[in-house]
Amino acid sequence: MKLSTRNQLPGTVVSVTTGEAMAVVRIKLDNGPEITSSITKDAVEDLGLAEGAKVTALVKSTEVAIGVE
Amino acid sequence: MKLSTRNQLPGTVVSVTTGEAMAVVRIKLDNGPEITSSITKDAVEDLGLAEGAKVTALVKSTEVAIGVE
Amino acid sequence: MKLSTRNQLPGTVVSVTTGEAMAVVRIKLDNGPEITSSITKDAVEDLGLAEGAKVTALVKSTEVAIGVE
Amino acid sequence: MKLSTRNQLPGTVVSVTTGEAMAVVRIKLDNGPEITSSITKDAVEDLGLAEGAKVTALVKSTEVAIGVE
Amino acid sequence: MKLSTRNQLPGTVVSVTTGEAMAVVRIKLDNGPEITSSITKDAVEDLGLAEGAKVTALVKSTEVAIGVE
Amino acid sequence: MKLSTRNQLPGTVVSVTTGEAMAVVRIKLDNGPEITSSITKDAVEDLGLAEGAKVTALVKSTEVAIGVE
Repeated sequence: MKLSTRNQLPGTVVSVTTGEAMAVVRIKLDNGPEITSSITKDAVEDLGLAEGAKVTALVKSTEVAIGVE
Repeated sequence: MKLSTRNQLPGTVVSVTTGEAMAVVRIKLDNGPEITSSITKDAVEDLGLAEGAKVTALVKSTEVAIGVE
Repeated sequence: MKLSTRNQLPGTVVSVTTGEAMAVVRIKLDNGPEITSSITKDAVEDLGLAEGAKVTALVKSTEVAIGVE
Repeated sequence: MKLSTRNQLPGTVVSVTTGEAMAVVRIKLDNGPEITSSITKDAVEDLGLAEGAKVTALVKSTEVAIGVE
Repeated sequence: MKLSTRNQLPGTVVSVTTGEAMAVVRIKLDNGPEITSSITKDAVEDLGLAEGAKVTALVKSTEVAIGVE
Repeated sequence: MKLSTRNQLPGTVVSVTTGEAMAVVRIKLDNGPEITSSITKDAVEDLGLAEGAKVTALVKSTEVAIGVE
């Protein structure tokens, strides 16, 4: 499926922390720093996410703010 | 200011496209692909964003989805 | 690509309104009412979105609020 | 209250999974598939959400991405 | 309609800037600073938003980040 | 760091509720009602957030919807 989501950042899962409802997944980007994602626990199980999994972090452009020093 | 925002990705502005209300800013990440941000036109002017500006893309973890092939 | 995005609603594009930076796409869900999406103008062009196109509306669970009468 | 939120999808609660901070609510849309919402545990209790409750799923247009096959 | 949306901030519209697709609405909170909202142009017209209108700014808790000096 | 984030609301932490993955932080705005934020547990620990902490609630304009009575 081709996505309107402008930001598609490939990486590898570093860790998965699961709560009863939500989960936090840390991803080392192929070229770049770590990125953190908060998704539902169901989604983690549905995608079988675990350390070492190859994934793509997906971020809609409206969700990206900008900072300048 | 220290932020709760888990994802802080440094890069350089590649282009700024401004409409009457909103603007789209493309950023080449220091180590990584391009990322696109949609912010208000006011914010672009307030931060003086233009091609070549050093910036940080900021993404809250709840806004990051994940895909697997 | 399999997505963590819990909400994947198939439908057909009803209209596309494009500004200089952003665009608004209205989608009639296969079984259900209309849904509106705001994405970048680039995304509309990249996906070739136009009236009649078969699409899937994608919404992360964290972006869904709930109302009760 | 009339809302700017473009997407207002009526349905019925199918399940509520509550963690210590957040909760995940699954809703069968009146005409359509299931939709998942992640809201705070407080909100679930405040609205008295439980299986069978008639609700409206609310999604701002900026939070809707689009996919095409 | 009672909302799961935790943040409901009453105020008065200060200005409306409309583009072809999106609009930016600035709101002076009853007790507090100004807040800015980006919604669709359709939503502005649908709600008849104009300077002086009494409104409530609505923000889902997952969309609120935190900064500390 | 100067932010594109249009909404920066100063206040004081009232409570922090932490789950295994996420946390909910309630903030009394300096001039105004309470506001609720859902962030990761890591972010709470990273910022040392606790009752009484002076903070700024940060909300991107695209995440602000509007209601009218």
